[in-house]
Amino acid sequence: MTEPFDAVDIIRTKRDKGTLTAEQIDWTIDAYTRGVVADEQMAALNMAILLNGMSRAEVSRWTAAMIASGDRMDFSALGKPTADKHSTGGVGDKITLALAPLVAVFGVAVPQLSGRGLGHTGGTLDKLEAIPGWRAELGNEELMSQLAGIGAVICAAGAGLAPADKKLYALRDVTGTVESIPLIASSIMSKKIAEGTQALVLDVKVGSGAFMKDEESARELAATMVDLGTGAGVETVALLTNMDTPLGLTAGNAIEVEEAVEVLAGGGPDDVVELTVRLADEMLRAAGVPDADPAAALKDGRAMDVWNRMIEAQGGDPRAKLPVARHSEVVYAPADGVLLQLDALAVGVAAWRLGAGRARKEDPVQAGAGVRLHAKPGAVVRAGEPLMTLLTDTPARFGRAKEALAGAVVIGPEGDRPGQQLIIDRIAAGHG
Amino acid sequence: MTEPFDAVDIIRTKRDKGTLTAEQIDWTIDAYTRGVVADEQMAALNMAILLNGMSRAEVSRWTAAMIASGDRMDFSALGKPTADKHSTGGVGDKITLALAPLVAVFGVAVPQLSGRGLGHTGGTLDKLEAIPGWRAELGNEELMSQLAGIGAVICAAGAGLAPADKKLYALRDVTGTVESIPLIASSIMSKKIAEGTQALVLDVKVGSGAFMKDEESARELAATMVDLGTGAGVETVALLTNMDTPLGLTAGNAIEVEEAVEVLAGGGPDDVVELTVRLADEMLRAAGVPDADPAAALKDGRAMDVWNRMIEAQGGDPRAKLPVARHSEVVYAPADGVLLQLDALAVGVAAWRLGAGRARKEDPVQAGAGVRLHAKPGAVVRAGEPLMTLLTDTPARFGRAKEALAGAVVIGPEGDRPGQQLIIDRIAAGHG
Repeated sequence: MTEPFDAVDIIRTKRDKGTLTAEQIDWTIDAYTRGVVADEQMAALNMAILLNGMSRAEVSRWTAAMIASGDRMDFSALGKPTADKHSTGGVGDKITLALAPLVAVFGVAVPQLSGRGLGHTGGTLDKLEAIPGWRAELGNEELMSQLAGIGAVICAAGAGLAPADKKLYALRDVTGTVESIPLIASSIMSKKIAEGTQALVLDVKVGSGAFMKDEESARELAATMVDLGTGAGVETVALLTNMDTPLGLTAGNAIEVEEAVEVLAGGGPDDVVELTVRLADEMLRAAGVPDADPAAALKDGRAMDVWNRMIEAQGGDPRAKLPVARHSEVVYAPADGVLLQLDALAVGVAAWRLGAGRARKEDPVQAGAGVRLHAKPGAVVRAGEPLMTLLTDTPARFGRAKEALAGAVVIGPEGDRPGQQLIIDRIAAGHG
Repeated sequence: MTEPFDAVDIIRTKRDKGTLTAEQIDWTIDAYTRGVVADEQMAALNMAILLNGMSRAEVSRWTAAMIASGDRMDFSALGKPTADKHSTGGVGDKITLALAPLVAVFGVAVPQLSGRGLGHTGGTLDKLEAIPGWRAELGNEELMSQLAGIGAVICAAGAGLAPADKKLYALRDVTGTVESIPLIASSIMSKKIAEGTQALVLDVKVGSGAFMKDEESARELAATMVDLGTGAGVETVALLTNMDTPLGLTAGNAIEVEEAVEVLAGGGPDDVVELTVRLADEMLRAAGVPDADPAAALKDGRAMDVWNRMIEAQGGDPRAKLPVARHSEVVYAPADGVLLQLDALAVGVAAWRLGAGRARKEDPVQAGAGVRLHAKPGAVVRAGEPLMTLLTDTPARFGRAKEALAGAVVIGPEGDRPGQQLIIDRIAAGHG
């Protein structure tokens, strides 16, 4: 077969700050999937894209080409609206766990196809796998029937969705080309659009524990993704939320499930509840159910009912005792005052080093490991009071976890207030 | 073995406009040669280097690391000075053929390790292979004894010199990362420094038929290479020379050998003679023989004597009839006037398409193919007069060769003069 383009011409075009045509983009993604464009060529092109950017039209076509590389799901047979949420990843971000059943309470199907964690941010599937018996892999029919019957599914994304993205992400990971807004946006959105949801709410994290460290980049990523979703006919909205400190009081696997269950029981930390309810509101509004009251559905047990059925449907026992780490060590407050900072990245890295996360795809995680916080920024603390408890099955890990926490805690004079605001902004279609 | 660095960190450093340390550069080149740094990682790094540049210190270390990847030759046992010339490549550039024997006349050994052509610029070895019996491959002992006895050798570079460069160049070729001044300079200079010459004259071409299209880039490339050579103890000087129009009246293989032999016989086109004599002067001066008269050695047959012995020593018959193309087609002047432009790139591409060059390393070339010019810029021509003769063994090639020549010829009113000057500048150590 004669190829209509030459990869070197395409690389040169982007290298020299040119614009790729729709045909060039379609061919590049297809030929890369077929192995005609080699890894080294795609790596050079990705670096040129990272450094020289892509226009919105290019990103949109790049995303469409990745969607076209695989299957597209279709939930129209369900006869009810669908909504999904995607977080760009943070520390202690267990929001999905309570959110999916909560939204399903109102008759909106939530097909939450998720991933495993890598590095300092946890993965939703790793967390749920702390529940005895629960399985992440579902066949397509199981997925559809669970969505029809229970309304919420959290499971592993099948290999058929945007396979080009899967190949490309693995390449970007080893070639220093992850940190490109057009490439991040198209990677996330190709999977979400292929998944076939009608409505999508993006939780774009900003801060030390997030992928985007500054608000400007986070805003650009959010706007790019909202445009991509809207352009593809998905009702898309993004929230910019703070990730300078962990969400809630836990960062790990089993301990995060425990906290999500507290929220489903009508309790839980304020920030987790606030973000869960706000995201539920956004998802319901985007799915055409604007008058729901998700806060009430947490209080009256309706969300917990869906959670229990959802976990059971995937083989899990929602009432089983969760794994507990065999060893723990307490970190104490070094001084009296107001806790001004409790750095998300440091806590995330500590949890990872304790065994809650993995450095490589194939590594196992410890269900019980992680960091339990006893205070959040804004709290008044006294020297010698417990600030965090480190949890692991392998006590040799405490040393490096504590190293990660050096400098993570800032205590100031009483009267000072941490400047963080959880929900920073909302970005919807036509944001300008 | 534990590696001291991570390729992704190094890629990120250059991507974010940082400076690589000497240890990072040494490791990168060595680990790439060992296959620990993968092709896709090196491709991403090369694109980052192309777009973000390298400091002179980085280029110098990068070059040294490539030299260290292989053997280094040593001509000190010859007991005479050595000088070499490198051209960045042009159309009709047969200068090396007469130059090497000419310089050898004055007791300076010329170890001219050369390459084959790719694309529109010819390769010295391809040209010499038009001579019946001549062989490009010499063992190390043959090379040394020919240098000792005859003084001039033009042969293929052994695989042992800068193998990292060989691997890297092949990668750059398919990943759109050839056009980087630091990478070009280090590629050329790693081979030339490893070759062990004492003196080196660089012919840096500028213009349509050259790799460097504008004078500023050519000047930067020349200055970078002069610094690299000087820093490595090689007496290095560069000439910037014009490549908007072909050198001489021939572009091909056998027809270029024929023209070089005319120069060795005391004749030949003015521009070829001028550049040959000037480069010989520079090489002799750099090698410590400042009072030689190379023009005289062309006129009196001394250079021809060395040529004959050099060709014979490598199995060639300098008196054999050279191959002649089986088919020819004449291109006529379209109008009366002064020939203002005869574009080098167009002629180079035409010669290539006629069979004189190759698109891939493994393709054969036609010895007789090429373009013979009947006028040079500055000449007065009449409409219908022959301007060029196209030569090939495969007449089907005429069509695409003529397409390449569209727009290549510009004829202006009598009295106008083409603005080209053959030797533009000389760049020596300490150029600023």
